[in-house]
Order: sequence, then structure tokens, then C-alpha cells
Amino acid sequence: MFDPAASAESHLSSYCEDMARRARTASRQLATARSAEKDQWLLTVADRIVARSEQVLEANRLDASFAQDADLPASSIDRLKLTAESLRASAAGLREVAALPDPIGRVLSSTVRPNGLQIDKVSVPLGVIFFIYESRPNVTLDAAALCVKSGNAIILRGGKEASHTNAALYGILRDALKSVELPADAIQLVETTDRAAVGHLLRLSEWIDLVIPRGGESLIRRVAEEARMPVLKHYKGICHVYVDQAADLDMAERIVVNAKCQRPSVCNAAESLLVHRKIAPTFLPRVAASLCRRGVELRGCATTRQLVSQAVAATEEDYGTEYLDLILSVKVVENLQEAIDHISCYGSQHSDAIVTADLAAAQRFTAAVDSSAVLVNASTRFNDGYEFGLGAEIGISTDKFHARGPCGLLELTSYKYVVQGHGQVRGE
Amino acid sequence: MFDPAASAESHLSSYCEDMARRARTASRQLATARSAEKDQWLLTVADRIVARSEQVLEANRLDASFAQDADLPASSIDRLKLTAESLRASAAGLREVAALPDPIGRVLSSTVRPNGLQIDKVSVPLGVIFFIYESRPNVTLDAAALCVKSGNAIILRGGKEASHTNAALYGILRDALKSVELPADAIQLVETTDRAAVGHLLRLSEWIDLVIPRGGESLIRRVAEEARMPVLKHYKGICHVYVDQAADLDMAERIVVNAKCQRPSVCNAAESLLVHRKIAPTFLPRVAASLCRRGVELRGCATTRQLVSQAVAATEEDYGTEYLDLILSVKVVENLQEAIDHISCYGSQHSDAIVTADLAAAQRFTAAVDSSAVLVNASTRFNDGYEFGLGAEIGISTDKFHARGPCGLLELTSYKYVVQGHGQVRGE
Repeated sequence: MFDPAASAESHLSSYCEDMARRARTASRQLATARSAEKDQWLLTVADRIVARSEQVLEANRLDASFAQDADLPASSIDRLKLTAESLRASAAGLREVAALPDPIGRVLSSTVRPNGLQIDKVSVPLGVIFFIYESRPNVTLDAAALCVKSGNAIILRGGKEASHTNAALYGILRDALKSVELPADAIQLVETTDRAAVGHLLRLSEWIDLVIPRGGESLIRRVAEEARMPVLKHYKGICHVYVDQAADLDMAERIVVNAKCQRPSVCNAAESLLVHRKIAPTFLPRVAASLCRRGVELRGCATTRQLVSQAVAATEEDYGTEYLDLILSVKVVENLQEAIDHISCYGSQHSDAIVTADLAAAQRFTAAVDSSAVLVNASTRFNDGYEFGLGAEIGISTDKFHARGPCGLLELTSYKYVVQGHGQVRGE
Repeated sequence: MFDPAASAESHLSSYCEDMARRARTASRQLATARSAEKDQWLLTVADRIVARSEQVLEANRLDASFAQDADLPASSIDRLKLTAESLRASAAGLREVAALPDPIGRVLSSTVRPNGLQIDKVSVPLGVIFFIYESRPNVTLDAAALCVKSGNAIILRGGKEASHTNAALYGILRDALKSVELPADAIQLVETTDRAAVGHLLRLSEWIDLVIPRGGESLIRRVAEEARMPVLKHYKGICHVYVDQAADLDMAERIVVNAKCQRPSVCNAAESLLVHRKIAPTFLPRVAASLCRRGVELRGCATTRQLVSQAVAATEEDYGTEYLDLILSVKVVENLQEAIDHISCYGSQHSDAIVTADLAAAQRFTAAVDSSAVLVNASTRFNDGYEFGLGAEIGISTDKFHARGPCGLLELTSYKYVVQGHGQVRGE
């Protein structure tokens, strides 16, 4: 009996397997590619992105018009849109990646053992990376650039809304690989919009070494649940600013306003403000006025509401919510320990800051708060690959296994031990 | 309706959850414990292991007699047995771990950004480690020592055969934590022999950060399949020695014999010999004689069998088999590239060696062979934490995510970014 559904399923499954196998083969070649070839590829892509920008922008206009027809929210359509200027900025980004040192082949440590064996720990690529992301087509270029420079093959799965733009960019990326004689299969695009393709690929741990999902929490949870290979991820950023009793209040206000308002829709924006009870009567009214002027809604504990007329009541749920919006939960705490305990209970191990002039308080906070970045007297917004000087980032990890915080070129590498001997054998 | 099975299941589930939660709480305290306290704990355990050795040995005799009654193989019973001498050796091992530098709180890198932010990357513990292992009760001490020294809480799940010994050792480990005022829950033992407990614990990714299974391949596959947290593991060691055309044949013979015979039951023993066709007629008969004298069975390709009368035919399956025994598969290859391709096809990314005097061949081999350790002119048996100078090892990883090769104290750490500012906020 012919079952068309089963046949489509099996077709999809071989499409995915074939893609992953070819990526594995390409990754082996790419692992030993010379820096000059990889950088030449980056420069070629940078040139062509600009030279062929009209073609990319035409595809992008098509995506934007489909998105409009599909009544996507204006913010999503905005994120989708490319311009000649944004393409030039992407090209400049690619040239910056080309200028970074090759992350592969570095000797990370070297020891000579008493028996004369020389043990070198040498950086190597991870292998094949499956990158799943929503909208923002410029991410296609960043991710491909970081992966190829670090000797990794990449399988791209972009959002449906950006499919024409991604296909146009993909064409340029892949043509450039051929031009510089790097394996074209080092970059592949999942061209079917069938969501089952993601499920298939997530099971292919034999050929795919790592999956990086970037998008909403539900996408990331689905990927983490289904993946049979490691996942580099963060679910959300419930970032705190704790204003200590020893804080400079001008500085504290500046940091709170920046962490909340400078770009509220991103993961390193602050979602919760903790204030030491001794300074709460002075600090809370002034910071509240400043935040409210910028349109921020405040949701506070009982003490907060006594001090700040604009604040509404915060529920238990508020303290665990990533608003990604102009809303801030506020709590007055007894002391530093209560702030640390609150962050450990409600935080997401992303980015948490203390404002204080007290060295001991700063030290206790940075030691006890278990987050990818712990900041003293600085905005949470700095937890970012560019700001940390990594050159670029492919994502932020809040896990502790492998890499933590912003992940750039170095975080896309592993290592092997290369042991040089002159005939040593092992005794008892 | 009362369902006794459901009730037992739910009892087990809360037993596991409670254990994992307590481990998480203890891990937070341990993360900021001082080096002196952790080392004092190690020295206390070392003293008590010797002082209370009779109590441990009595428990061990009980396990051994149960194992005999259960008709376990002699090799398993041997691995189970402790002696006063082996306990003294374990105590010495604990004192060595105490003497190693604290892996926590190291500044791994530090940069000052143009805006004046100081970005320090600081080593931190992973958190809670679930360690599953079979027999060999001395591993209980090694694993607990490495975890506590690296600030991690550990949940131990030993083999049923060693349950009395492990309980006796556990009592000493835990009492010593109390003596030095470290949290006792930093070390916990799964005391039920119900196998379902492992399944429960493997789902608790909220409180357990890493699982390390050590034992047979089927145990490790089951753990990798079920775990909802990262797994540090290797399935098997199909280790190769490739004897190149430019090899010193005396050295090659010494290395092959050592790699195969010195301890055939372990993961870094050689399972397969590849020989360049140009030297096969000279080298194969002599190495075969040497191996056969030591009781090694040879399974070879057609060319091998023409040159070596003792060899039986190797099947395709032989080349992918980890014998862990005095058996060696043998293949004559056309050239270096065929050796590399063979290893990439049949190997397990564990430990692979080349014997050659040709620098270019050594370089190509170490670059192209994608294994946790690639050795030049040395036995595969050296891929080991002690031999690499890591002090001790909790396991070997053949994966590329996080740590690869032997894993000691440093491999049980993660890092966080500590950012020091003086009021910096982020601009556009």
C-alpha cells in the first residue's frame, strides 16, 4: 500500500540525513583549512553583500510584503527589514571577523612530563553546528561568519518570514565558498518550511555536534527537549539591579534607567530592581520619577508602594517574569543577603548587577550570585559579545557546561591533546 | 483507590527530588568555601580511611562474599576487593589532591575595555554532579575528592555489588564534612538499589548540572538517552596504532605491544593495528610473533593473512569492536590517507597513535585525526589524567563540548564574568 504521508516523512528524513552527513564531511575539510582561505572567504562575502545588495534587498522586500499581508506585528516587520546601510554594516562586521586571530590550532597549554612526553592541548573546531533562529536576517551572516572562521560547518534554519532574504544571502555565502575552494557544504540552509525537519535534525547526534537556538523561550524549550546533542542556549534574562545601602545614588539611578530603558526588548535589559531598605525612602521616589518619565510601569512590594505612589502591586509571578517591555518589578530588601537569595530564587543566571561603594558587599555579591555575568557599578546591558571584546557573538549561554555568557569564536572551539613522544611505553 | 505501586513510585520520586534539592543548596555553600577548609576535609578523610580501615574492609568482605555467592566473574570480584594497602594508596591519592591548587576563583582572563570596564573571567564550580559507576569502590573516594575540591556537590550511585563498601566509605566522607563544617549534603549516596532512582535523577536538570556515567557501554548509552542534563562520557575506546612507512620498527613493535598488552581491559588499550603496505612484509611477521607470544589473537585483512600465518580473517565488524581483551584487528593500508580515513570511519575518537620518523606524516596525522588524544611515537595507554599531569581523573570524554580527554579538577569547573565598573551605562 502506498502511503503518501509516510513517503513524505521518509523523504524529509533522508533530506535531513543527507544534509547532516554532507555537513560532517565538509567539517572535516574545513577543520584543517588555512586561516588565509577562511579570511579570504569572509572578505569575498563582504564584497559581494555590497555588490549584490539590490538582489538581497529585493528578496527582503518580498519577505516584508508577505509579512505585511500576514498581519505580523510592526515590530516583527521592522526586525525583518534590511537596508543598503544595514548590509554595509554587516559587510563591515564580516571584515572585522576576518581581522580576528584564527581560533583554531592555538596551543592552549603545553607540558613536558617526567618521562619526556610533550602534552599539547590544541584548539580544534566543534564540528557541525545546527543554528535555529527567528527573523533578523543579518544574523544569517554573523552566524555563518563565526562558524566558518572557527572551522565549523553550519546548518542554518531561519524563520519562515525571512525565507527569501535568507535564500539570497545563502546563495552569496555558498558561492563564495566555491570561489575560494572551501567545501560548499560547510554552509547549508534548511530549505523546506516543514517544521518536522527541525525534529529530524535534532536527532542526528552522530553528525551534528551542537545546536544553537535563538528566539523565543518556547522555541528554545522545544529544541532543548528534543535535541540529542548539546544545546547552547539561554531561556530568558530576568536581570536584576540591586542598589545597596552604600550606593552612590546618582550612579544607581543612571544604571537602573539605562538597564531598563536603553533597549527594553533584549535579554540583558533589567526586569527587577532590588533596593536596600535603608536607602529606599531616599532612592525609590527619585528613581521612580525618572523611570515613570520614560514610560516605565512599576510593580512593587508593599514597602515600595508606600514610598512610590505610581507603583502597582507586584505578584509573586512578577518577580519571575521577563517583561521585555517598559515594566519593572521592584522590591525593598532587608540586606545584601536577602538580595542574593532573591536573585538565586527568581533570577535566570543571566546578568545581575550591584551598585555599591562598599568593597566587601561587592565581593560578597560577585562571589555568591551565580550568573553568567555579575556586574559591579555597571549596567546589565554590557553582557554582550561586542561589549566584552569577543568580536561578535552567536548567542549567550546561561548554562555552565562548555561556555557561559556571550559566545564568540573561541566558544565555538573544543580541543584535542597532541602527545609527542620518542617511543615511550607505559609501565606498571 | 490506593495503588501501592504508584505510592512507591511517588515515594522514590520525592526521595530523589529531596536529594537533588539538598545537593543544590549544599553546592551554593561549597562554591564559596575556602581552599583551606576543602583541603582540611581531604586530609581528614585520608587519615580516617587509614584509621578506620578495618571497618571498611569488613564491609568490603561482605560485598565480596555476596559477589561470590552470586557467581560474579572472578575479574569482577577482583575489581571489588580492597586491601589495607589499597586504602593507604587511596589516602595518599587524597593527600595529592589536597596539595593541588584550588581550581576555583582563578582569573582565567582579564581585559579592560575602552570604556574602562574591567572584564574578568573567573572559574566557578559546575554545581551538582551525579556520578554513576560500577564496582571499583576506590572510585568513590576519587570522585568525591575531585568534586569537593572543585566546589561541586556530588550524588554518588555506585554498583550494587559494592554497596556495603560504598556505604562505609560514604560514612567517612560525610562525617569528615561535618568535622570541618562543610555542608554534609555536599556528598550524598543513592541508598536504594531500585534502578528507577537513576531514571528519576536523570530528569532533575533543575538541580543537577552534569551526569558522569562510568561503566559498560550499555549503562552509558542508557544514561545519555535519558539524561535531561549534560553528560560527560565516552562510550568506548577503539584505539588505533598506525605504523607508517617511515617508522622505526623496533619502536613500533614496543609501542604496539605495550598499547595492546600492558592492560588490555581498559579504554585506552589498542584494539586495531594499521600498517603501511611498504613495511608490512618486514614489520607484520615480527610484531605478530611478539604479540602471539603474549597470547594475542590476530584478526587481519587478506594482505595481513598472507604475511602472518597466525592471523584469522577479520570481518567488517572486527574493525569497529572494542575487544577489551587480548585480541587485535590488523589492516594493511595503502598510505597515510587510508589510515586516517579508516580511523575516521571505525574509531571512537578516544586515543590514536602514529609511529613515524617523518615530520610531515606526523603533522598530517595529528591535524586530521579527530580524537581526544592523538599520539606520535608513544603508546595509546598514556591518555590518562595521571599520565597527563592532571593529578587525578573522574573520567575521559570523547565529546567535544566542554571538556575532552581526561577530566580532572579543572574540567569540573565553569566560569562567570565579573565586570567591574564605576557607573558605566551603555550608549546606542
